[in-house]
Parts: sequence; C-alpha cells; structure tokens
Amino acid sequence: MARFPFSAIVGQDEMKQALLIAAVDPTIGGVMVFGDRGTGKSTAARALAALLPPMSAVENCRFACAPDEKGTCPDPCTSGRTRKRPVPVVDLPLGASEDRVVGALDLERALRTGEKRFEPGLLAKAHRGFLYIDEINLLEDHLVDLLLDVAASGENVVEREGLSVRHRAKFVLIGSGNPEEGELRPQLLDRFGLSVEVRTPDEMEKRVEIMKRCGAHDRDPDAFAGQWAEEDAKILKQIERGKKKVASLEVPDDVLEDAATLCLAVGADGLRGELTLMRAAKALAALNGARAVRREHLIAVAPMALRHRLRRDVLDETGSTTRIERAIEESFG
Amino acid sequence: MARFPFSAIVGQDEMKQALLIAAVDPTIGGVMVFGDRGTGKSTAARALAALLPPMSAVENCRFACAPDEKGTCPDPCTSGRTRKRPVPVVDLPLGASEDRVVGALDLERALRTGEKRFEPGLLAKAHRGFLYIDEINLLEDHLVDLLLDVAASGENVVEREGLSVRHRAKFVLIGSGNPEEGELRPQLLDRFGLSVEVRTPDEMEKRVEIMKRCGAHDRDPDAFAGQWAEEDAKILKQIERGKKKVASLEVPDDVLEDAATLCLAVGADGLRGELTLMRAAKALAALNGARAVRREHLIAVAPMALRHRLRRDVLDETGSTTRIERAIEESFG
Amino acid sequence: MARFPFSAIVGQDEMKQALLIAAVDPTIGGVMVFGDRGTGKSTAARALAALLPPMSAVENCRFACAPDEKGTCPDPCTSGRTRKRPVPVVDLPLGASEDRVVGALDLERALRTGEKRFEPGLLAKAHRGFLYIDEINLLEDHLVDLLLDVAASGENVVEREGLSVRHRAKFVLIGSGNPEEGELRPQLLDRFGLSVEVRTPDEMEKRVEIMKRCGAHDRDPDAFAGQWAEEDAKILKQIERGKKKVASLEVPDDVLEDAATLCLAVGADGLRGELTLMRAAKALAALNGARAVRREHLIAVAPMALRHRLRRDVLDETGSTTRIERAIEESFG
Amino acid sequence: MARFPFSAIVGQDEMKQALLIAAVDPTIGGVMVFGDRGTGKSTAARALAALLPPMSAVENCRFACAPDEKGTCPDPCTSGRTRKRPVPVVDLPLGASEDRVVGALDLERALRTGEKRFEPGLLAKAHRGFLYIDEINLLEDHLVDLLLDVAASGENVVEREGLSVRHRAKFVLIGSGNPEEGELRPQLLDRFGLSVEVRTPDEMEKRVEIMKRCGAHDRDPDAFAGQWAEEDAKILKQIERGKKKVASLEVPDDVLEDAATLCLAVGADGLRGELTLMRAAKALAALNGARAVRREHLIAVAPMALRHRLRRDVLDETGSTTRIERAIEESFG
Amino acid sequence: MARFPFSAIVGQDEMKQALLIAAVDPTIGGVMVFGDRGTGKSTAARALAALLPPMSAVENCRFACAPDEKGTCPDPCTSGRTRKRPVPVVDLPLGASEDRVVGALDLERALRTGEKRFEPGLLAKAHRGFLYIDEINLLEDHLVDLLLDVAASGENVVEREGLSVRHRAKFVLIGSGNPEEGELRPQLLDRFGLSVEVRTPDEMEKRVEIMKRCGAHDRDPDAFAGQWAEEDAKILKQIERGKKKVASLEVPDDVLEDAATLCLAVGADGLRGELTLMRAAKALAALNGARAVRREHLIAVAPMALRHRLRRDVLDETGSTTRIERAIEESFG
Amino acid sequence: MARFPFSAIVGQDEMKQALLIAAVDPTIGGVMVFGDRGTGKSTAARALAALLPPMSAVENCRFACAPDEKGTCPDPCTSGRTRKRPVPVVDLPLGASEDRVVGALDLERALRTGEKRFEPGLLAKAHRGFLYIDEINLLEDHLVDLLLDVAASGENVVEREGLSVRHRAKFVLIGSGNPEEGELRPQLLDRFGLSVEVRTPDEMEKRVEIMKRCGAHDRDPDAFAGQWAEEDAKILKQIERGKKKVASLEVPDDVLEDAATLCLAVGADGLRGELTLMRAAKALAALNGARAVRREHLIAVAPMALRHRLRRDVLDETGSTTRIERAIEESFG
Repeated sequence: MARFPFSAIVGQDEMKQALLIAAVDPTIGGVMVFGDRGTGKSTAARALAALLPPMSAVENCRFACAPDEKGTCPDPCTSGRTRKRPVPVVDLPLGASEDRVVGALDLERALRTGEKRFEPGLLAKAHRGFLYIDEINLLEDHLVDLLLDVAASGENVVEREGLSVRHRAKFVLIGSGNPEEGELRPQLLDRFGLSVEVRTPDEMEKRVEIMKRCGAHDRDPDAFAGQWAEEDAKILKQIERGKKKVASLEVPDDVLEDAATLCLAVGADGLRGELTLMRAAKALAALNGARAVRREHLIAVAPMALRHRLRRDVLDETGSTTRIERAIEESFG
Repeated sequence: MARFPFSAIVGQDEMKQALLIAAVDPTIGGVMVFGDRGTGKSTAARALAALLPPMSAVENCRFACAPDEKGTCPDPCTSGRTRKRPVPVVDLPLGASEDRVVGALDLERALRTGEKRFEPGLLAKAHRGFLYIDEINLLEDHLVDLLLDVAASGENVVEREGLSVRHRAKFVLIGSGNPEEGELRPQLLDRFGLSVEVRTPDEMEKRVEIMKRCGAHDRDPDAFAGQWAEEDAKILKQIERGKKKVASLEVPDDVLEDAATLCLAVGADGLRGELTLMRAAKALAALNGARAVRREHLIAVAPMALRHRLRRDVLDETGSTTRIERAIEESFG
Repeated sequence: MARFPFSAIVGQDEMKQALLIAAVDPTIGGVMVFGDRGTGKSTAARALAALLPPMSAVENCRFACAPDEKGTCPDPCTSGRTRKRPVPVVDLPLGASEDRVVGALDLERALRTGEKRFEPGLLAKAHRGFLYIDEINLLEDHLVDLLLDVAASGENVVEREGLSVRHRAKFVLIGSGNPEEGELRPQLLDRFGLSVEVRTPDEMEKRVEIMKRCGAHDRDPDAFAGQWAEEDAKILKQIERGKKKVASLEVPDDVLEDAATLCLAVGADGLRGELTLMRAAKALAALNGARAVRREHLIAVAPMALRHRLRRDVLDETGSTTRIERAIEESFG
Repeated sequence: MARFPFSAIVGQDEMKQALLIAAVDPTIGGVMVFGDRGTGKSTAARALAALLPPMSAVENCRFACAPDEKGTCPDPCTSGRTRKRPVPVVDLPLGASEDRVVGALDLERALRTGEKRFEPGLLAKAHRGFLYIDEINLLEDHLVDLLLDVAASGENVVEREGLSVRHRAKFVLIGSGNPEEGELRPQLLDRFGLSVEVRTPDEMEKRVEIMKRCGAHDRDPDAFAGQWAEEDAKILKQIERGKKKVASLEVPDDVLEDAATLCLAVGADGLRGELTLMRAAKALAALNGARAVRREHLIAVAPMALRHRLRRDVLDETGSTTRIERAIEESFG
Repeated sequence: MARFPFSAIVGQDEMKQALLIAAVDPTIGGVMVFGDRGTGKSTAARALAALLPPMSAVENCRFACAPDEKGTCPDPCTSGRTRKRPVPVVDLPLGASEDRVVGALDLERALRTGEKRFEPGLLAKAHRGFLYIDEINLLEDHLVDLLLDVAASGENVVEREGLSVRHRAKFVLIGSGNPEEGELRPQLLDRFGLSVEVRTPDEMEKRVEIMKRCGAHDRDPDAFAGQWAEEDAKILKQIERGKKKVASLEVPDDVLEDAATLCLAVGADGLRGELTLMRAAKALAALNGARAVRREHLIAVAPMALRHRLRRDVLDETGSTTRIERAIEESFG
Repeated sequence: MARFPFSAIVGQDEMKQALLIAAVDPTIGGVMVFGDRGTGKSTAARALAALLPPMSAVENCRFACAPDEKGTCPDPCTSGRTRKRPVPVVDLPLGASEDRVVGALDLERALRTGEKRFEPGLLAKAHRGFLYIDEINLLEDHLVDLLLDVAASGENVVEREGLSVRHRAKFVLIGSGNPEEGELRPQLLDRFGLSVEVRTPDEMEKRVEIMKRCGAHDRDPDAFAGQWAEEDAKILKQIERGKKKVASLEVPDDVLEDAATLCLAVGADGLRGELTLMRAAKALAALNGARAVRREHLIAVAPMALRHRLRRDVLDETGSTTRIERAIEESFG
C-alpha cells in the first residue's frame, strides 16, 4: 500500500523544511517536533522516507553496509552482490528495552553453540534512514541521551555482557512531544539539532482539504500517490542537489558574526546554537542551489536552530519563536 | 450455553450503535465505554460477537488466516482445508504481562530444539474479533498505547528477544472505565475512535424488564436465545449490508465542512476529531442503507466521535455531551 | 480431630444464613464478612464445610471431577473408580503468588521431559468447596479481581507461560476484612454477592457460653462434636432440600418490582443489587421450603444483598444497615 | 560454653512467668515482649531452652519427629534409633526470606536428579522449641501473619513451587519490639497469646548485681552455671508438673464469668481476650500445683493476656497495665 | 609499600585509645567513629593492623583457623603446616551484597559437580582482624544489624540457599559516619561498644606537621616507617601485656556502683552502658598495667562507652560529651 | 580522523591547566569540571589524550601491562613482544552497569568450560589513560564512590560472584556536571583532587574564532591538525619534563604554612584541601620547570584545589572562587 505522499501534506512548512535540511546533512543532530496531538507528526517523516529512492546495500548484510563499506561491519558481510532496500523508518516503541534498542548478545546462539554473536537492535535497523520516537518526553533520560549520542556520532558502541561491538548507525533522529506534558531536560533538548512546532490548522479550507486528501488516500492509496508523484520527484531532486553541494560551501565571516550576534541577542547557552545555525544555513543554501551562504539563510533557519536553546527568562514570558524573531529584527532589521 | 442475545439488551442504545459502527468499519479505532459499574458493558460486546456468523479460517492456523490469506502468517500455514471458528472475544485480564499480550518466544521449544518460534499472544487470538479491556484506566499507559497502535494498524509487530515477527491483528478494541476512578491521559483517549456513556437505567419498568430477562436467561439460556433469534438475525443483515456499502460511499464537501465547523465549535484538538466524524458518519449511512452521507448522520455520531476529544475548558464545567449538543444546535440548528 | 460443629456456633445468625444461601446457590457470587477481629469468621466457614457430606470424585483426578464430569478436565482423568473426598476449604494465604493461586506450568516436568503440564493451583483445590481469604483488603486488587471472576464464572482460564488451560473452579468465595483498615474499592465490593457483619457479642451469658463450648471442644473435640451431631444433620437436610427446589422457583413480578423499588430507594449503583436480591430471595425461599418467593424473603436478604452496594451519601452518615432498614420501612412498611 | 542460667536472671518476673506458662501450654499462641533495648529480652528465652532437658528424636530425622511420631514427617523418617537433641532456640534473622522460613524446594537435588524434595526451613528447625524474633515490628506483615498461623496451628503448610508439604512445627513464638518504633497492626498483636513489658531496672542494687553476675559469667561460664544449677532444677520440675496437670484442670463457671466481666470492663475487642485468659489461668494453676483454677490465677495473668488487646481510648491516655489493674480493682476489688 | 605508622598519626588520641581497648578485648563490640570527612579515620585502623605481628594460621585454611583450632572450620582444614598471615583489615564496600558479606553457595562448583560448597565472604576474611565500614549510616539497617550480631557473637551463622554453615568470625568492627548525614537508629548505635569523635585539628603546627609527615610518607614510605618503628614496637608491647592481664582483673564493687551511678546520671537506656563501661575500664587498666580497676579508668573510658547511648533530652541541647563530663563532675567530682 | 588539537582549543585556560597537572601527577585524584552545556568539556580531555604519545604495552595483554609490569596482571600476560597503543579515553556511559564498570565473571566461559575467568571492565580499559564521566551528578553515589576509590588507589579490587581479582587501574578521572542540576554530595566532591569552571565565552571574537576552527576541522580534520602540530608538540614536551621533575621537588615549610593558612582562612573541612594544594603546587612547579615550589604556585592552583571543598556559609553567598581570591588577598596580599 502506497504511503501518503510528502508533497500532499497540507501546510506544516517548517517541519517539512527541517526534515529536508536533516536529509541533506544528517550530522545536524536530529529534529524535535513540538505540537498538538493528531497533527500528523509521524506522517511527514514516513512520507519523506518513502519519497527517497531505495538504497543499495550488501546482500544479507545485517548492518545495511553500503557497497563501498562492504566487510566493515561487525559480522563482517562478505556477499559480492548488492540489493536495493527501502530507506528505513524505525519507530521506537515506548517501553522498548535498552537491549532491543542498542542490540544485545544473541542468547540463543550463545547457549546453543557457545559463540557470542551480536544481535543488532533498532539503531542498526535505522542506519541510513530515520528513527522516529513519539512522546520522547516519556522515554527515560538515559535512553534519550544514548540515542542522541549515536545520532551525533553516527556510530553505536556497545559495551555489555562481555560484548564490545561498534557499528555504523547514521540516521536522522526525529522526536515528538507535547510541551504540555512535561519537557525534556534542557541538556537533552540542547543536543537536538533542530526543533519545529506544528499546530492544528485553524483555517476551514485547510481542514476540509485535509479531510478530502485523507478520504482519497483511504479509498485508493495508489491512485492518490500517482497524482502527487511529479511533485514528490521535484523534492527528491532538490535533496540530491543539496547533498552534492553542501560539502563545498563555505560560510563567510560576516555571516558567522551574524550567527554569534543572534545567539548572544537571544541568550542561547553554550556554543551549540551558533554551530547549528552555521550548519543549517549551509544546508539550506545547498538545498536552494545558492552559490554562497547568506544572512537570509541564517534568518530562515534561526527559529528551528535556536528555539529549544533559549535560556529561561522569568521576566519575559514571550514565546521562544517571538523572542527569536524580535532578536532578528533588532539585530539585522 | 447460549450467550445473552444482543437484541435482548434493554436500552444502552448509544453503546449498541457504536459497536455496530465498529463492526462495519473496524479501522475506526476502538470504542471506549464510560460508565457505572454493573451496567452490562461487557455483555453487549460478547452478545455482538455471538451474533456474528462463524468465520472461515485455514485449518490449524495459529493466526486465524482467512482462506484468501493462506500462507501469509509467520508460521506460515499450509493446510488446504478451511474450518469455521466463532468470532473471538478476548478479555485482556488486568495484570496480563506484555509477553502474553503481544506474544513471545516459545521458550520450551527454544530450549528443547534450539529453534526460535513465536508463541502468539492475546492480540493474535483477537484477530478478526473483539478485544475487551475492563477498567482500562488501570492498565499501564505503555500497554494501552501498544494496544491502540495495533488496533489502528491492524498489525502486531514484535521486536523482542531476538524475534522479529509481524502478523495481522485486526480487531475492535473495546475499553471500559469509570471516569470517577481516574481517566486515561488525553493522548490515549484521543486515539480511541469512539466513546459512549452507559448508565444504570432509572425507569422502574426497564429495571424490572432487565430482571425478568436475566431470570429467563438464567433458567434456560437456549430457550431464551430462541425467542430473540429473529431480532438478532435482522441486526446481522444490517451489519453485512453496511460492510458491503461503506467502501463505495463518498462524503460530500458540505458535510466535510459541517464536520470541520463542528470540531472548531466544540474545540477538539488535532484532526482526529473530524477524520473520525467523517468515517463514523459514512459507516452509519452504510448501516442504515442510505445512498449518501448526510448531515444527519454526522449529527448522530458527533457525540460518540467527539466526546473524549474536547479541550478542557476551565470556565465551562458543562458535560461533554451537552457541549457537543449545544454546538450542533448553534452550528446547524 | 473433629472440627467445631456448625450448630454449636453461638450467635452470628446473619453470617450463618448467608453461608447457607451461598451453599444452595453458589453462583450468587461470594460472601464478604465485615467485622471485628477474633469473632470466629473463619470458624463458621470451616464448620459448614465439615458438615457437608464428602463428595464423590474420579479417583486421582487432580481437578476433583465429579463422576459425571469424568474426562472433562485438562488432564483428562481416566480412572473408572470413584472416591469420596471431604468438601475442601482452602485458605488463601496472604502473599500467595498468582502462580500458586491460578496454577502454573510444572517447571520440573518441563525441564526434565520437555512436556508442558499444568500444575493446578489453589483455585483448583477449592473446586466444589470454599475459598476463604482473611483480610482480603490487604490482597492486591488484581488478585481480588481474578478471584471474583473465577467465583462468578465457575471457571479458571489460565493464559500464561505458553499455557492455555481451562478447568472448573466452582466454589463459594468468602472474604473477610475489617472496614477500619481500609476498604476494598467499590468496584470490587460490588462484585461480591452478599455481605454480612459480625460483632463481638455483648451479653455476658453468650460470652460465658462461648468459653464453655471452646473449653469443651479443647478438652475432647470428638465428644463435643457428638453432642451437636443431630443439630448439624438438620441443617444438612435443609441445604439439600434447598438445592433441589431452587431451580424450579420463579419470582413473581410484584416481588421483582419490590426489588427495584428497594434498590432505587437505597441508592444502589448498577443492576447487581436487584439481580442479587432476586437470586438470594429465591435461595432463601428454597432453603425454607416455601412454595413461592415472597416479599418477606426479599426483606430478609436485603441487608446482606445491598449493604456493600450503597452509594456514599456525604450528608447522611447513617450506617448502611440502618439505611436499608429505613428504606424497607418506607417502601413496604 | 554454658548459657546464662534462667534462675540467675535478675528481676524480669513477668517475662519469666509468661515463658513458663507458654512452656506448659505452647498452644497459648506466643509471647510478645515490649521493652527498652538492652534489657536481656533474648537472654531469658535462651536460658529457658537451655534449662529444659534434651528431647528425644528419631535419628537423622530432618523434622525432629518424637519417637512416637516416627515416620509421620514428609520424608518420612525410618531409623529405628533415637537420639537426644537440645531444645532448639531459633533466631529469625531480620531480612530472612520467606523461603528460608517456611522451607523450599531443594533446587540442587531437583536440578541434579529431577526429584522434588522439600528443604526444611527455620519453622522446622524450631519444632519442639522456641522461635525468637527481635524487632518483630520491622518484619513484613505477611511474614508475621504466617508465623502466627503456624504458631497457632502447630503445623506448617507449604504450597509453593509445585510443592505441597505439611509438617509439624510446634514452638513457642517470642517476638520483641520497642513500642516507640512503630507497633504491629492491632490484628497481628491480637494474635499473640501473651505480652509482657520489660524495663531497665532503676534500683542501684539490682544494676550492680546484674553487672556482677555478667562479670562472673564472662569469667567462667561453667562455674557460674554450677552455682545456679539447683535453682534451675526446681524450675524444671515445676514446668514438668504443670505440663502433666494442665490437661485435667477445668475452669469453674464463676471464673469464666470473671473473665468475661474483666474483658468487658477493659474493653477488649473480640473473644481472644477471654479465651486466652481462661487458658493462661489454667496453665498458671497447673504450674503452681493448684487443685482448681481460681480468680487469683485469672488476676495474675490478666495483664499479660489482655495488655495488647485493649481498644484505643482517645480520652483515656492511661497505660494499658494501669487500665487493667483498675478494672480488676473495680470488678473484684 | 609500608603502611603509615600508627605512632606517626598526629593527634586523634581518643580514637587511638579506643582501637587499643578493642584490640585488647575484641568482644567489646566494635568502635563507631563520628567525624568530619578527610580526617584519616580509616588510616588509624589500617595502621594498627599493620603494627600487629602476623598471625599463625593453618596452611591453606579458607577460614584462617589458628593452629589450635585446626579442623574446626566448615571445610574442615587438614594441613599439618602453619603459615604466618598479616592481620586482615577488610573494607566493606558500599553496595556490597549480603551474599558477598556473609558468604554464599559456590555456584560454579554446584553447577559443575553438584556439590554444595560454601564460598566464604568478607566476614570470614575479617576473622582475627578488623572490618572497616565507611559511611555506615548509608548501609541498609539489616546489614548493619547482621554485622553487629556477628561482631558480638564472634560467629557467622549462614542459613541460606539450603546451606547451613557456622564459622568463627572474630573481628573488631569499625564503622565511621558523619552525624550530619543522618544517624544510625538508636537501636543499632547502642550495639556498638565504643564511639569516638574525630575532628580536623585547628592548630597550625599540627596541620603543618601532618603535611610534612604525609609528604615524607609519599616520598619514601619505607624510610618513613623506619623512623617510627621503635614507637610502634612500644605500643605493640602494651597491647600484648593488656591481652594477658585482662582476663584476671576483677572490678571491685565500688567501681561497679560508680558505673551504675554514672549511667543513671547521664540517662543511658538499658544495661549495655554499664556493662561496656565495666569491660572497657578493665581493658584500659590492663593496657596500662594497673593492678586493679579503679574509678579513674572508668572516668577515662566513660565518654567513649556512653556517648552514643544517651537518651535524647529535648530540653537539654548540650552535646553528649559535655553531658557525660558534667555527670562525672557531679557524681565523683 | 584526526581529533581536535589540544592547542586549538579557544580559551578554557583553567581546565587545560588542571588537565596538565593531572597528567603530571595522576595520583592527585581526578578533575571535576563544572559548567554550562555545550562548552566542549569532553573535547579538551580527548584532545589531551590524542596529544600524548602512544604507550607501550605487552602484546595482547587485556590489562595493558607496561613492559616492566609484564606478568603481574590477573591473566597473567606472557608475550615477549611489546606493542604501542593509543592512550585510552574511556567514556562511562550513563546507565552503565556496575558489572561493566568493574568487570565481571565471563559467564559464557564459565558455562562452557566451568572455568571462572575475569572479564575486564571499563576501569581496566581506562588504565594508563583517562576516564571521562559526563553529568556525573546523575550517576548513583555508590558508583561515584567506587570510581573515586579506584582513581585514588590506582587499583581495582573486585570481590563478586566468587571472584577475587585485583588489577592496576591508574587513570585520570574527569567528571563533568552542571551545578544547576543538583550537586554531588560534599563527601564525594571532596574526594576529587581538582575542580574547574568553564563558561561559554562572551566575546564576539572568541565565538567567531571557535566557529571558524570548528568549520575548518569539519571540512578537513587532518589538514587542521597539521596546522596545530607544532603547538601540541610544545605542550607534550612540557608534560614530559614535569613528570621527570615532580618526584624530586620538596615543598619548603613556609609554603606548607601558607597552605594551612589559606585552608583555615577559606574554611575547608578536613585535611584533603591542604594535601591537594601541596601536591598540585608541586606538579605545577614541575610543569613550569621551576627549581622550587613557591607561594606563587600555591596561589595559582588554590582555586582549583579548594573551590569544591569550602564549607557552606549561609551568611556569605559569595561564589567559591571569589572567596578563595579574597582569602589569598587577605593572607598574602
């Protein structure tokens, strides 16, 4: 059954933008989605993954090695053939054990043959794709920490039960949560690269349009996907162009100064704010096919790069987004 | 021993209606029953299941594959023969372990033969039938979440103990709870498709009638069932007609607008409210043999589709049902 | 050593009556005993069991199948011979594990032979007898729930550890508790058929009489039992007559109306109140050899059928019994 | 090394009396000792056990069967020979597992030979002796309950891990606790037969005498024991005479009335108060060699039989002992 | 590497005195050290142990049997040869399991050979030496209780996992704790024989001296030890003389009366206070080579014997030491 | 991929100084880093390790024995060859089990061959390098305690599961934590040798410089490392000179007096303050190539040696660093 097409999603522009940026530069560190329940947060991630072309991987490799990584996984994989696999979207179920997430000793084999073999976990499954965690604020802190570590380093290091295993685990981490239900600790939030806010649309037309598209998808998913195939293809081209360009782009000094100015103005702790601003602006410029990174790219990504890093200001109850927009206005406007 | 007949249930019209809608479109997402103790909440579900004709399934298939699904379950099933089985009603006992619910490794076989085989759980048992959970508010959140996931997707995905199994698990989830004893979290409630309220009847005649029918059922269940067989047969026909028709019904744009208007008027968060309204109205129209979905169908299902999704309004302590009825009156009246 | 004779118990008339009703119609759903410590609550249950004639069961059957049930238990039993066994009174020890209560996999056998056999638990031991739980309010809710389910259905359904077993477990559940130490949740209380109150007698003569009978029983239990054998025999006859008659008795409509009137008057939630009233009145009529169920039977059992089902009335601190007696007075008096 | 002699204990008369009564009639139900730390509570119990003559038991019997019980234990024991063993005093260590207390499956044997054998626990070790529990208020309630059940019935019934074992466990249960550190629940206290209070002596001479006797015992335990051997022998004779006489003593009606009068006057809940009064008075009379049980015996044991059973009286903060003495004065004085 | 020499410890006189008393009479029941962090509490214990001459033990005996105890341990040991071993100082690590402390079944051997052998724990390792517990107030109460039991009786009784083992475990228990972090329960404190207070020295010269000695020890531990060898040898002689004399010393009646007077005056609960006073005074007299125990010995040990046993006096916030000194002044001064 | 070079770190001078001191004298007891998130706390430690030359170790030795320690580890190692290994930096993951930290029984081998072999843990891996713990305040106290014990003694003693193993574990412990999220207990803090504070730089130029260096490192890590190689080589030489000199330096008496004066003035509990001052000043003097330890060295290290040891002063809310600077001013200024 065909997935809901990425381009058929009504509204949610900031979230879609953030996902595209993360697709271009997965080292940016994950996307945190704040928002009401029932606003299709997971739909967008799944739609993006479905839009991406299947990836090549060594046949039967349990760690989805790319052809040029053959034999570098813990098994190691040996097949000379390559197979296409869909880009994975892994859902981390609430209550998943740490074992299942990071992988564990294959007990059965250990008991039967005395051989210690590593049984890959969900992190291995998410390699080269997306790892989606709904209500991430209900997860235990140490698990969130671990996931962010792996997302940041692109590598899963397992030191348990006498196992000592390392394997690639490069994925875009997407967490969602409702801020009314208790937030993540600032330390954890800070480690997410980007954050976006999604809301139930207020406009009648948008809401009717959503119902119509859902109804059409319900009735005949394949026909519905056909209608949006062209739009999805355009987006795919944009991502691929961005991936090629991003490595070669430099950020001019004045844009770096803009980044530092903005972070000081909004009051972001630490240095992750400006480092992410720099990287996200570069990815956006690449996505847009720009020749250089400019202040406008910085301004465009500033809310998603800084929103979750603002120091609490007891005297100023203004929302994070407004504070960032005001700082942009005051600094550059 | 014959079950209590569905048509012999005195009153409880909204609950019976919701069950019929869920029987016509099981993807609607479960029914939550709020109400006093001792009001026969589980009786109605059992009665509906007993009324449905036995289902055909591949002989000995542990996952109750329908004849046209043969060989698609994890085992996979191979028998060329088909057997009739009663529609299952599975009770989820309080304190059931997650293992027992989702299924688990068959440890005995693993120890004896070194073969990892999946032992299906209660979710597999409920496939093609009903899963009933009394006092669902006493269940751990993550288990409720898991049950709602499976009910919504119709599929049970098990990633545990080195097992990686998927099997169909399409069932109508019915939860019951007394709102005085602590509610479910809004996030979980929102994921139920419909909700109904049941109360102890106040009228003397109804209460005496209930005692008489219970007494008659106690004395001779089979004779009692015989008296109501014709009524039950009518209901069965209605369900079967509804199931055939529902796929081809479309919802006109003005009815979609009505749905959005109503959701905005009552203040339902997210989009699940209007999507459920749309689907439930369609199922009701099909059940009633209507040619098109009309505003009246929408109004009829509005309380059960929206009651559990209202945003709390601190200034307005009016009950949910009244708020919905008032919004209907103001919007369409 | 002979048990204390049932007829030698001084006072405690309501409790003795409730036990006799439950002996006549075990489907009435258990007896809850409220009362002071040290008032011989368990003595009465044991005495009643000791008074009943030994029951016939298939030889060596682990589930105590009656001769006409031979071969229908999980083993199944095969012996052609029948043996007499005393009516069981099973004490559920505080802290008993769920395993031990419902039964479990016979691990030893599983490990030794790879065969999964069910090891029956206390519920199987109580079949055809009594299950006594002291301080039931200290038991975990889910265990109480489970016990009430089994007591109501007469069947123990075990779904654990890959076992799927059903066996008969028909018994009279007797729970005792001191209301001063925290009550059961109303939902659980409501599921008990009857409830009685026992108190330490105030009258000097009764207390001396009790000491004398205890002293006599201490000195020579068999001789003491001999003195009361005739009285006990009379009670046994009464029970046996009741059991034969109860099936054929009908409850006239006006008595059903009386039941509903009374339940409305006292404010009992749900319908279990009047259904129990109806059944208890029938059992009492049968026990007394009456030709028809009359309002007087209803009135006699009303306190024990309704006492634990009254809705809390914050403005009326009157005890439950008084409220019932007042309602009887107002309704019929 | 010789134990401290029973007769060399300075003061503590009520405690010594209670222990002697329990030695004469072990079914009296245990002795609860309230008191300050460091007052030699456990010394008295150990001293009494050391004073009793070694008991005869079947050779190698793990359940210490007396010669006339040979072959009636779970093993069962078969040796034709008899051996003397010291009367056991078992200390229940805080934190002892239930397994270790009641006994458990002998896992080693089960794993090695597939044979299920019962490994006796501390209850079996205490058979025919004393079970001492310091700071019993720190024990889990369900364990206290279990211990009191066994102490009352003289039998340990184990229903665990597929084991179903019964063995004799007749012992005098002695619990100690400091009322300042949280009391036992009244339900548990009530099940103790007797209770005594011990205090640090105030008199200078007593305290110096205690130090001198402890010093002498430290220096040469055997020589010290020799000095008190004659006194100890007298006490032993008294116990043996009491044991023989107690069975044949009856309690006259007027003494029973006195017991009921006293219990009513002090406000003891339930009937255990007067039943214990009756039994303790009988044991005391037997110990003293009296021909009949008289009011004076009743009065002598009233504090220890009733102290822990008084209903709390919020208006009367008088200590329990004083309230009993006052009631004796008013009733008989 | 040589330990820090006992005689090189600057100040801390009370602590050193208490350790010497415990070395002379290990049955005194342990030393509790109250004090600031970083005051070298464990250094003194280790230094004392290092000063004692190696002890003779049966070769390879896992329970360190002395030559004259050969064959009396659970193994039992059989070697005819004797080896010298250093006096053990065992550190009880926070978080040590009960298993590891008391010893446990040697699982490996049990699984491999089916033989149940006891694996000695830390208590066995501490036999004939010292057991040091830092921050004892963070240990679970039941473990402290167990340690005090063993320290008092000199014997470790293990009743677990079907094991029933007894072995000698005579050691000086030293606990340390900071009273600001929560105290031990009075019941546990009372069971310690002695208690001392250590503080950071205030005097400049002492502090510089400490740094100089630590620096010298850091640079060349062996040379530093050499400088203090003579002093350490004197202390060793004193201990050995004390051990020989202590058995034969008697405490005159007037000194016993002094002890009781003092305990009454300071308000110490129970009798452990005066019994410890008596024993500690005797040990001090022996250590000092006195011919008789005199009031001055009593006065010298009174603070360490009574400090932790004073009843709380809400009206008198004076420190324990001051209260004891005042009572000495008033009673004897 | 080349690490970020130590000398390319912008600012953070106190932290870099503390790491160098610990590299010269690893017995100083670890470095605690307080500071904002995102300030590159772990980068500095990793950079320092990368700068150190690879260390020689016995080939295949699981405990990284240096060539002159060959055969002294638990295995023991036997290879005649030596291999170079990079200086280890071990990250202690949050939620690491104690087993994994200290090492444990190699269960697989035990089950397969019956042989008990020790599986080294993270402490063994950190030997001769660095152990880094982020958010150490979230670790359980007993684990922090254990880590500090090992860091102080340079030896890991394992007493578990019947294992009794000792191995060298000399490493520099680096803990980081944000004081706003709850501090370590003073007892634990006190055991850290040094502590430093790091902050986000406020100066625009520094922030832009950091972004530029990160960007350059991102683009081509090896080229970037090349640019800083010379600077790093200078630092390495400084460390090596310091290590050689530190043993022979003495601290003159007047400097010791200065240390005591300063500790008294700031109010540091215990003696660890001045002992650490003495050792850190010595290490700094050695690092700087000074001939003698002088007051200026003491002053330079005073903040990092004392900051975490100040007694709380409720009346003086001045920060720790300020209090130390003021005391220096008043004492020596």
